[in-house]
Amino acid sequence: MKKTRTVFQGVRGAFSEEAARVLVGSTVVPVPKPSFDSVFETVSTGKAKYGVLPIENSLVGTVQDNNNRLLDSGLQIVKEFRLRIVHCLIGKPGTTLKSIKQVFSHPVALAQCRKWFQTHPELQPVAYFDTAGAVEMVASSEQNDIAAIASPMAAEVYRMKVLRKSIEDQKFNYTRFILISRKPEPFKGTAKTSIAFSLKNVPGALFRALSVFALRDIDLTKIESYPSGKRAWDYHFFIDLIGSTKDEKVTKALSHLEEIALFVKVLGCYPKSVDRN
Amino acid sequence: MKKTRTVFQGVRGAFSEEAARVLVGSTVVPVPKPSFDSVFETVSTGKAKYGVLPIENSLVGTVQDNNNRLLDSGLQIVKEFRLRIVHCLIGKPGTTLKSIKQVFSHPVALAQCRKWFQTHPELQPVAYFDTAGAVEMVASSEQNDIAAIASPMAAEVYRMKVLRKSIEDQKFNYTRFILISRKPEPFKGTAKTSIAFSLKNVPGALFRALSVFALRDIDLTKIESYPSGKRAWDYHFFIDLIGSTKDEKVTKALSHLEEIALFVKVLGCYPKSVDRN
Repeated sequence: MKKTRTVFQGVRGAFSEEAARVLVGSTVVPVPKPSFDSVFETVSTGKAKYGVLPIENSLVGTVQDNNNRLLDSGLQIVKEFRLRIVHCLIGKPGTTLKSIKQVFSHPVALAQCRKWFQTHPELQPVAYFDTAGAVEMVASSEQNDIAAIASPMAAEVYRMKVLRKSIEDQKFNYTRFILISRKPEPFKGTAKTSIAFSLKNVPGALFRALSVFALRDIDLTKIESYPSGKRAWDYHFFIDLIGSTKDEKVTKALSHLEEIALFVKVLGCYPKSVDRN
Repeated sequence: MKKTRTVFQGVRGAFSEEAARVLVGSTVVPVPKPSFDSVFETVSTGKAKYGVLPIENSLVGTVQDNNNRLLDSGLQIVKEFRLRIVHCLIGKPGTTLKSIKQVFSHPVALAQCRKWFQTHPELQPVAYFDTAGAVEMVASSEQNDIAAIASPMAAEVYRMKVLRKSIEDQKFNYTRFILISRKPEPFKGTAKTSIAFSLKNVPGALFRALSVFALRDIDLTKIESYPSGKRAWDYHFFIDLIGSTKDEKVTKALSHLEEIALFVKVLGCYPKSVDRN
């Protein structure tokens, strides 16, 4: 069977691996990498076909950087997916909640289970590098009184036991993941296109930029301005729109935008995920 | 001397405390709180005059939530400030880099010093809940072979020694902090206004919304769309603009926006920080 090497930041069982399985399907061979930079490098040099990245509302810190990394890389978004973040308390087979004293996880994951910890004051939360990494550590430890908080998949990967499922405070907790590759891929159905551009810092510049879409009835689903990270107060805009780069009205809008913007770059044209508008 | 109670999320010596000192000045009495929710609650109930929040490009996880929390709270932004994030290696007085074996900090801070760790393979990074908390832990530990990564102020607060300064990979690393209060405050000079609104999900809706500013030559410095966190695919827009809610053209633009938007809310009118455009 065909194997599709897909790199992600983190360790085996990370939420990104869960997203990779959905985005790539049954041929996926998930390959963990220590950093987002190494994910981009591995895909750019062709050592993996795909990379999976959290891009929005994620557990990890500044996901904004992935937008700027994508812009610099020249890689293309070929798919998107929103994963509901479900936190589980995971222990060794044979353990129960009553036998646990310490719970290891990423500080953000621990914070997302604050209310649950308040109802279990006997449990001590302990910070760890990542959620799945904490499960790996618990699995290889000799202690039986420790557990981890991570995805259900992390329990599966390390052959561990889910002691409590869905202990996150906020059930409406999704992370948007994208699949990146060196080249675009053909697809059927409704298309979405992600673009980045920058503008001269003059009043009305963004309004004029958006006019190229509004005048053509192109629907925008996302807009964000981020510091470019290159010069102080230099901003990049990131827009998602409904439509394909093969549609005449989209290509005309983009060439119209080029007249206005300092640069315009297509980050990808890919099937609109069924889970979002 | 007047004392100004100012709450922030984290422990003493956190980057938010550093921002609080700049935003409030010499009368500040910084009060640490365990969560962002408790920061909002303490200010809302009048138990503290001010709260300090990271709002953009921060070390901590999903700062987006602070935009939505602010919208729900009815509190007002009264000041803004951008803090350059400088990471220091901090140990006990008497220790040197050579005596250190383990380095504790928040995983995001450790990741932001990756290149520095690569040049010091003898040091083992260890995850901790927060940067300043790691300094507090090292200070109270009996071990002399551990250090922490945190702000220079954390070293000062816990009477510790800066062993290496500015070890972050990326020197262009700023976090924008805002000062929140129950009511607006008078000020002189150029004003900035932050607003939130939502729109019907129809093509061109955002363009029409932005037209209310463009037609009046009002300069926007920031635009973001975030999931509201209330219903699936329900978005809130957050805009910063140059101008005061006392300027006629701003009030007219906002009442024009109310004709278009599902809701419009002013999050604050405050002096434009000199450090940004």
